[in-house]
Amino acid sequence: MKKTIALFAGSFDPFTRGHADVVERSLALFDEVIIAIGVNEQKRTLYSADQRREQIARYYAANTAVQVVTYRGLTVDLVRETGATVLVRGIRSGTDFDYEHMLSDLNRQLSGVDTVLLCTDARHSFISSSVVRELITFGGDPSPFLPEGFIL
Amino acid sequence: MKKTIALFAGSFDPFTRGHADVVERSLALFDEVIIAIGVNEQKRTLYSADQRREQIARYYAANTAVQVVTYRGLTVDLVRETGATVLVRGIRSGTDFDYEHMLSDLNRQLSGVDTVLLCTDARHSFISSSVVRELITFGGDPSPFLPEGFIL
Amino acid sequence: MKKTIALFAGSFDPFTRGHADVVERSLALFDEVIIAIGVNEQKRTLYSADQRREQIARYYAANTAVQVVTYRGLTVDLVRETGATVLVRGIRSGTDFDYEHMLSDLNRQLSGVDTVLLCTDARHSFISSSVVRELITFGGDPSPFLPEGFIL
Amino acid sequence: MKKTIALFAGSFDPFTRGHADVVERSLALFDEVIIAIGVNEQKRTLYSADQRREQIARYYAANTAVQVVTYRGLTVDLVRETGATVLVRGIRSGTDFDYEHMLSDLNRQLSGVDTVLLCTDARHSFISSSVVRELITFGGDPSPFLPEGFIL
Amino acid sequence: MKKTIALFAGSFDPFTRGHADVVERSLALFDEVIIAIGVNEQKRTLYSADQRREQIARYYAANTAVQVVTYRGLTVDLVRETGATVLVRGIRSGTDFDYEHMLSDLNRQLSGVDTVLLCTDARHSFISSSVVRELITFGGDPSPFLPEGFIL
Amino acid sequence: MKKTIALFAGSFDPFTRGHADVVERSLALFDEVIIAIGVNEQKRTLYSADQRREQIARYYAANTAVQVVTYRGLTVDLVRETGATVLVRGIRSGTDFDYEHMLSDLNRQLSGVDTVLLCTDARHSFISSSVVRELITFGGDPSPFLPEGFIL
Repeated sequence: MKKTIALFAGSFDPFTRGHADVVERSLALFDEVIIAIGVNEQKRTLYSADQRREQIARYYAANTAVQVVTYRGLTVDLVRETGATVLVRGIRSGTDFDYEHMLSDLNRQLSGVDTVLLCTDARHSFISSSVVRELITFGGDPSPFLPEGFIL
Repeated sequence: MKKTIALFAGSFDPFTRGHADVVERSLALFDEVIIAIGVNEQKRTLYSADQRREQIARYYAANTAVQVVTYRGLTVDLVRETGATVLVRGIRSGTDFDYEHMLSDLNRQLSGVDTVLLCTDARHSFISSSVVRELITFGGDPSPFLPEGFIL
Repeated sequence: MKKTIALFAGSFDPFTRGHADVVERSLALFDEVIIAIGVNEQKRTLYSADQRREQIARYYAANTAVQVVTYRGLTVDLVRETGATVLVRGIRSGTDFDYEHMLSDLNRQLSGVDTVLLCTDARHSFISSSVVRELITFGGDPSPFLPEGFIL
Repeated sequence: MKKTIALFAGSFDPFTRGHADVVERSLALFDEVIIAIGVNEQKRTLYSADQRREQIARYYAANTAVQVVTYRGLTVDLVRETGATVLVRGIRSGTDFDYEHMLSDLNRQLSGVDTVLLCTDARHSFISSSVVRELITFGGDPSPFLPEGFIL
Repeated sequence: MKKTIALFAGSFDPFTRGHADVVERSLALFDEVIIAIGVNEQKRTLYSADQRREQIARYYAANTAVQVVTYRGLTVDLVRETGATVLVRGIRSGTDFDYEHMLSDLNRQLSGVDTVLLCTDARHSFISSSVVRELITFGGDPSPFLPEGFIL
Repeated sequence: MKKTIALFAGSFDPFTRGHADVVERSLALFDEVIIAIGVNEQKRTLYSADQRREQIARYYAANTAVQVVTYRGLTVDLVRETGATVLVRGIRSGTDFDYEHMLSDLNRQLSGVDTVLLCTDARHSFISSSVVRELITFGGDPSPFLPEGFIL
């Protein structure tokens, strides 16, 4: 049996209940999960990369199968550095799909590592980081969209 | 490390180069792959379920990590019988996605077993069993669409 | 204030929790709802049109704002006969949308009556009549997909 | 019979023939329509929020069933303030749909108020505010895309 | 300058205003158009292949740049027989697209002949042969959906 | 036989193997191809409009049927200036389609000139200018995504 390491890359600004669902389901399929926060200085974010890393790392502190990292540059370079054996992505809609298909083909061609898509659980399908950011910005309560017990 | 068994269910009438690609990529991710040919007496097929099982089993004869079975009824019942730990599906387009999302949610709710979607390799994205059936029916040559060395 | 009558047409073979959700939400928006079971002799169904009418009528027996009818032919003819002021449709995915858009434009052009689409509640988005029929056919338990207390 | 108030929120930069079509069709279904111009200081617009409010209010000056307001923040807060009983949205394509589905589920969960989608009339389906802005910017004539008699 | 012959293949059961629009626009782009009626004995049709050929040929009788033929088998074989230099297809929606993309890639690989897609004019986008068949079957008036002067 | 001039407008920042495929296939269908680089001062680009024009013009220097121009403003104005008889667009996915449909209808209404869509060859479907830009920015090798022999 092979040791499998899943890489889950994204912005996670912030991490949502939908993201936690992808992590939990990946842990049922693979041995380890690396949550990789992509840093892009050109893009304004609500939380800094360091804040996001701390928020997520704190949430998974008790789970030794989960690692949280930040990275710059190409996902395929991170794949090589970490020894990840598979990329995981949550997917909500057919609109998402066309983009994910392109990424999947590209990353496989560049690195030889495959991507598995997990369909967002229907209960989480209206949750997105941008919705959470909007709620926070306008004084709404984001907690129904964050993982239970997650601290921003 | 967990032993992982992927169940790849479909009609496979006939098995194509795209299907073989899903099997090969599943073997890189999971320990075993069960190819499960769904039998539906109501649906006319080009090859009988037994023919399809023999064609596919012959192709994978040398690979002990691949099993080929036929089944009737619900996929979730087969999941329980075989001890499969994950369902795999190839997906070609956003149109496919909406259907796959529904199946994934349904099967997870009924059986607790998750589904991973693999995006069809772009080179195979215009290959489908129905295209191969049409080629065969009208005297075209299906071999560019079958796995190399596959015998109908 | 206008009296509004919503017409909800479909096959309902059988009626699901998703359909009941559309009816309930339509009742919050409009004064009456007519559930119209389309009869198509060419199409094999699991339940006869009469069985479906009885199942649904029994379920809504206590609700005087809900009527259940069967019909043959064009939806626009039924619109005229019943005096419906609006058509309602549940919609689950972008794939559904393209078809619904065509129907909506067509029915508006033919009858002057508009169509409102209600997005399927995420919790019901993997429920469809065809899934329920398959469960019933293969001895599965359809009750989580039927409205609570619905008798087949 | 209930009094129904539809809330039609958007940027309307500027208001188009497609938007007017949604308003007119909403008036056939509901008692009142509130056109709500979302103000977002981060986003550059061609017309200021005040200009847009005046343009649209002038166009509907004779129609007492139409109100025009500007708002900041969450749509669900505006729903509560105005007593709106339903949200309306025009929808042009399957691509739009996935986003609208998410919004619909979200707003229903946050406010209890439902959303109805109206399919854009085919004759207006290539009209969008961004097209009109581009025409204006490059000296084209936007009038075929504006409601008849609308003054910018 | 090359002589260009466009092949427009379909069922045309019956030919609609949308089909006529594709033919007319193809004539503006290419020198000749062959309308090719695919014959499939397995599929029930409203009009026989001969009836369809006569209806369409009568409509284009005065136009020497239009030919009407029936064919069995693979489209690529007809491409070779007729010397067509390009395939044309009308396309209404993103749902259609995924199928057309597959066909286009397939036909180009099999015959070397390319496919151009023409987006259905918005005014015709709710017109389809199946809608026309349904209207005819239930005694509705199909004439707004047929080309002006087309005789069934 | 008519002389046909295809206009292929885009940002081409940079020109990719997928773009070259559209040009080559357009040359098989039409007599001349004009590659028109849209200039938009508001949008940050990796290469200036002049650099892009030189890169592409150098690549097609030996092909007298290809012209390369830059333009500001509306595509329909360029259509009139150049005498183009058709617009060509490559299309990768159903998501792209909805946007292309809108553009096609709009440009046909504004200029009377039609648009033909060519489906991206499956082998190029994961190639996009934004992917190439990202590779270049992070020190990856873009050459597999550029036309063979193309010099940036």
